[in-house]
Amino acid sequence: MLDSTATPLKTLLRRRKPGYSLEAPFYTSPEIFAADMDVIFGHHWLFVGVDPDIPEPGDAMTLNIGKASIFLVRDDDGEVRAFHNVCRHRGAPIVHDYKTTVGNLVCRYHSWTYGLDGKLLAASHMGEDFDASCHGLKPVHVRSLEGLLFVCLADEPPEDFEVMAAKMAPYLAPHDLKNAKVAFEKDIIEPGNWKLTMENNRECYHCAGNHPELTVPLFAYGFGFAPEELDEHERKEAEDYDKLLKASHREWESCGFPSTLMEHLDDMATGFRTERLPLAGDGESHTNDTKAACKKLLGRINDPKHGALHFWTQPNSWHHFMSDHAVVFSVLPLDAERSLLRTKWLVHKDAVEGVDYTIENLTGVWDATNDQDSELVGYCQDGARSPAYEPGPYSPHTEMLVDKFCNWYVNRMTAHLGR
Amino acid sequence: MLDSTATPLKTLLRRRKPGYSLEAPFYTSPEIFAADMDVIFGHHWLFVGVDPDIPEPGDAMTLNIGKASIFLVRDDDGEVRAFHNVCRHRGAPIVHDYKTTVGNLVCRYHSWTYGLDGKLLAASHMGEDFDASCHGLKPVHVRSLEGLLFVCLADEPPEDFEVMAAKMAPYLAPHDLKNAKVAFEKDIIEPGNWKLTMENNRECYHCAGNHPELTVPLFAYGFGFAPEELDEHERKEAEDYDKLLKASHREWESCGFPSTLMEHLDDMATGFRTERLPLAGDGESHTNDTKAACKKLLGRINDPKHGALHFWTQPNSWHHFMSDHAVVFSVLPLDAERSLLRTKWLVHKDAVEGVDYTIENLTGVWDATNDQDSELVGYCQDGARSPAYEPGPYSPHTEMLVDKFCNWYVNRMTAHLGR
Amino acid sequence: MLDSTATPLKTLLRRRKPGYSLEAPFYTSPEIFAADMDVIFGHHWLFVGVDPDIPEPGDAMTLNIGKASIFLVRDDDGEVRAFHNVCRHRGAPIVHDYKTTVGNLVCRYHSWTYGLDGKLLAASHMGEDFDASCHGLKPVHVRSLEGLLFVCLADEPPEDFEVMAAKMAPYLAPHDLKNAKVAFEKDIIEPGNWKLTMENNRECYHCAGNHPELTVPLFAYGFGFAPEELDEHERKEAEDYDKLLKASHREWESCGFPSTLMEHLDDMATGFRTERLPLAGDGESHTNDTKAACKKLLGRINDPKHGALHFWTQPNSWHHFMSDHAVVFSVLPLDAERSLLRTKWLVHKDAVEGVDYTIENLTGVWDATNDQDSELVGYCQDGARSPAYEPGPYSPHTEMLVDKFCNWYVNRMTAHLGR
Repeated sequence: MLDSTATPLKTLLRRRKPGYSLEAPFYTSPEIFAADMDVIFGHHWLFVGVDPDIPEPGDAMTLNIGKASIFLVRDDDGEVRAFHNVCRHRGAPIVHDYKTTVGNLVCRYHSWTYGLDGKLLAASHMGEDFDASCHGLKPVHVRSLEGLLFVCLADEPPEDFEVMAAKMAPYLAPHDLKNAKVAFEKDIIEPGNWKLTMENNRECYHCAGNHPELTVPLFAYGFGFAPEELDEHERKEAEDYDKLLKASHREWESCGFPSTLMEHLDDMATGFRTERLPLAGDGESHTNDTKAACKKLLGRINDPKHGALHFWTQPNSWHHFMSDHAVVFSVLPLDAERSLLRTKWLVHKDAVEGVDYTIENLTGVWDATNDQDSELVGYCQDGARSPAYEPGPYSPHTEMLVDKFCNWYVNRMTAHLGR
Repeated sequence: MLDSTATPLKTLLRRRKPGYSLEAPFYTSPEIFAADMDVIFGHHWLFVGVDPDIPEPGDAMTLNIGKASIFLVRDDDGEVRAFHNVCRHRGAPIVHDYKTTVGNLVCRYHSWTYGLDGKLLAASHMGEDFDASCHGLKPVHVRSLEGLLFVCLADEPPEDFEVMAAKMAPYLAPHDLKNAKVAFEKDIIEPGNWKLTMENNRECYHCAGNHPELTVPLFAYGFGFAPEELDEHERKEAEDYDKLLKASHREWESCGFPSTLMEHLDDMATGFRTERLPLAGDGESHTNDTKAACKKLLGRINDPKHGALHFWTQPNSWHHFMSDHAVVFSVLPLDAERSLLRTKWLVHKDAVEGVDYTIENLTGVWDATNDQDSELVGYCQDGARSPAYEPGPYSPHTEMLVDKFCNWYVNRMTAHLGR
Repeated sequence: MLDSTATPLKTLLRRRKPGYSLEAPFYTSPEIFAADMDVIFGHHWLFVGVDPDIPEPGDAMTLNIGKASIFLVRDDDGEVRAFHNVCRHRGAPIVHDYKTTVGNLVCRYHSWTYGLDGKLLAASHMGEDFDASCHGLKPVHVRSLEGLLFVCLADEPPEDFEVMAAKMAPYLAPHDLKNAKVAFEKDIIEPGNWKLTMENNRECYHCAGNHPELTVPLFAYGFGFAPEELDEHERKEAEDYDKLLKASHREWESCGFPSTLMEHLDDMATGFRTERLPLAGDGESHTNDTKAACKKLLGRINDPKHGALHFWTQPNSWHHFMSDHAVVFSVLPLDAERSLLRTKWLVHKDAVEGVDYTIENLTGVWDATNDQDSELVGYCQDGARSPAYEPGPYSPHTEMLVDKFCNWYVNRMTAHLGR
């Protein structure tokens, strides 16, 4: 009955059994959560927002990554910069609202004033020996990948972000996210460890039983199956799906839309996976009627039947790019047993709400799906708390990407902590 | 001013002073709470409910014992079984509601399906190497003692449950709890350590000052007194009470109702105590007017003036069986400073609400008494938090059973942890 | 990214850099909070209330100091006594309300009864061996300094309280607080470590930007400035202020009102500071219109333009005595990140609400100022949580008293814990 949090983290990492879920302390221990926040969220590239969150110079957005409070701001040259949101005098935050527009950056406590480049411009009464140049805001690494904003809190971020960026840019560019706008965003707090949120996202074994809205435009065969369980009719359907997938990829690629599978989920520090998948029937988008939610299409796409480009990153994001809109998701851990899921729906920046799209139709499927997933994540968290929990086997046909997420996690932790 | 949680648990156990309340960390320390949940609640028989909670095959009831989530279910043969409520795949709970009726046991996450015997019947996509027989639900020991359900989370439960069962069955059988129904149940969260809840229950020194409803049908002399404090009139009353008690026992036993005191509160792993006590005046039951709350009497009892059979178990229950109804109480610790008290009122299964009894009349006395006790338990918890708290002396005349509860606790902890 | 709470407290104390704010764990660590409660709040004199809180024999007031619950009671001789609020039997509190009036002190649990001197007068059923004289309430040291009540939880309080009392009595006596009454009191919970609440109080660098109400009657130059930043006009104003200050002190002292600066913030265990300051313009008091809030003046003061006597004590109080009313503040830490600020407004005991004063006018300035300060304290707590926080430099012209507070804190901790 004694829980196993007393087992050293390195031992737990070393004895992880491939093909099985993690031991309970990985989901429940505050100590391991602290290590996660240090190693995973402190030293890897995290998806945190989109260029359209802060479109104009002076636009700023705050966010918390564990105990770190940071803000992103677009400077006068149109570049995105990121800083720790901590005044160098007494530590007060500089930017208070989630999204705002600033001129200079003025601390409310004693009016210390910084430029958008983080330099300390003014601080009264500090005496003649005070060196303002040593008291600028602390910068945070930030990169835009075709409109997707990633930050890294470490001094020396993983260098393979460039590899991912080079490979992904051609996939993403046609959707032209920089010229989109955030039509709606929503935060929910999932009652589980961030890894359970990610694991839930990395399989669709649970979709048929839990996501009535999402599964309408999805091909069941697109998410894996045990071939020996298929009857003759199903085997035929699976073969048809395979042909459709290949034909779709050929067609899209020939039009300049990279679409084939690229997967580096557990062999890069900046792990990722992408693929453009066809939608079932006449499906155009992730909506309740499977039709495009927005009349204006994104970027240089002119056929609403363009499938859905899926892009996943380790450790904390997934994205769906359809012809008419994109949905981007970031997971921000709150504590060992709670995670913030932040979802943003983007449409063309010139689309007009009420004319080209409605929020209800645009967000219906994923709003419902997120809530369903949140409940499932909570179930697993309940399980992990139980002394009767032990790692269970992943399906080799439908949960292999969950396994790769766990591989990536264990590899990254081990790389930082040593064996 | 530094608290003494730094003192090792074994040292605290070793230096416990008989006749005095426990040192503060036993009531406040999260570490000792964890040890309590392991040793006491993880390795002893716990009262958790009654057969009438799940009368029919497929009826199930969930409950939490510390971090463990379990469920009880009546199988197709009418036997009660208990399992950890944790799917062997990803850990999700199998049964979600407090009480429900099930056919098979199906996990909502990926539809793994178990029989009422816990065997895994179906799990799709798991591949040809998967062995379903290794992935059944984990069982929990469960026993019914004349309708009172006890579970033990340990692999090897204390064997002396059988001793208690053999001794208690003749006392309990006449009330025929298996043919009763739960007329009402109520949970309250007491703001104190579970041991304070138990200690409060194990004396009636506080009754006169705090329980105006409960004390009406109780004889004050039944709960101990300092003989040297009695005046002549009181001494006569005490002698009369003693005669009444003996006469009542003789009468009840001659009719086949075992009634005399049996006490093994600190000399058995499965500690218990029982005695049937007469009620004052014309008292028939624990009600506001001291009359039977239910017209239909329990079991084979046909005289409403049948006293009250008290049955206590270590570590977590007490029960009052009157002629017309029974009240059963289980204590389920939530954390070091909060405890769930679950109370169920039972009447004959054929009794009709509104005709034979009303909920208000049935539950009035103990609903009020529970709330009064909860407040008192909170007082003691407040005291235990104070650096000025030190163990105080128990009354040798009115708190000797509190002392025995503490003896039992210290003995059981020591037996498991070593000296 | 790993936080530094793992650094031993002694190391953190030893490496504290004078002139800079403290390292983050001093504001966030539960372990250091526990040490603060032991060393600072367990072994120093704390301001907790005023004689007018309990004016008559039998009047009692409870309060919590960390985990300690105590109460103050005026005994039949008119003396204030203080006791731990813990029954010597089972630990229940003796006094339940914040303020009440008692005859004897009776525990509700089992009716143990104590006199106002703490002696156990009655306890039934305890047997003939029980020695009541060993079970009196545990006393707490308490002192009244001209109506200001201080307690010390230690067995041996700092002896220099007498030094402070001797020096301060002549300053305080003219306001005759013992013949005042508490017109209003209010508790707020500041979302920060108690040291941040104190640090915020120990400078007015932040006042101009944050306290529009408070700064009306205050001279900006009274709280320090960098001389090199003044223009010619401002230099003239500063010189005028200096002259006014000296002239005011001469005038007040000649009338028997000690007023000049006395500062022992970091060179005594019972650190303190006092000075009477003139108010700007026609200012009489800390009110929205700067006029006296109460028609009846305090004590032997007969001119409403009497400036404001400031009295600060380490570790937890500040006080403003004007001609017409006094405002007293005590800080009671709740946990590492929350502090109770208790504020009491006092006027002459014969003043009549609605006739001589209104609550709204009396409390307006400090009620607003407290709320503003609470928000600022929360900002600093947010900053201290961030891994990017590092100690920042104090202004040598406007934050030297904050530095002295930190000096005092570090010195006292080191004196108790050793180097």
